[in-house]
Amino acid sequence: MTKYGIKVLPKKEVLDSQGRAVQSVLEKAGFSLDDCHIGKYFEVKTDKGEVEIKKMAEYVLFNPLIEEITIESL
Amino acid sequence: MTKYGIKVLPKKEVLDSQGRAVQSVLEKAGFSLDDCHIGKYFEVKTDKGEVEIKKMAEYVLFNPLIEEITIESL
Repeated sequence: MTKYGIKVLPKKEVLDSQGRAVQSVLEKAGFSLDDCHIGKYFEVKTDKGEVEIKKMAEYVLFNPLIEEITIESL
Repeated sequence: MTKYGIKVLPKKEVLDSQGRAVQSVLEKAGFSLDDCHIGKYFEVKTDKGEVEIKKMAEYVLFNPLIEEITIESL
């Protein structure tokens, strides 16, 4: 049984309004940031391999048009 | 300038209804999973250290009562 972490972030070309909003809130609070992106994080436990996980993620977990993923085994 | 990844997941004791819903959808589609948790993922670029990042995350990015975070430098 392997644990996988799947990070989903908006593509660089896509306007990340949520990220910008958080960055501006943090800057007002005195935490200066150079860049801030916000996405989703999935942690799944399964006996499948990484290829299967990628197929699964493409099926339902992210939109390849506007988002990109990183899969890591934990 | 360092890039940090901040993973926010619901605590194990907290009912992760979103995770359960996704798990059930995936199982119906033939992807059997043993466990599925869903959270948020932040990627920030800053010249601050990890201690400062943790303080910042506690200030606004997660709720320590029901969520837990993992900070990694990328």
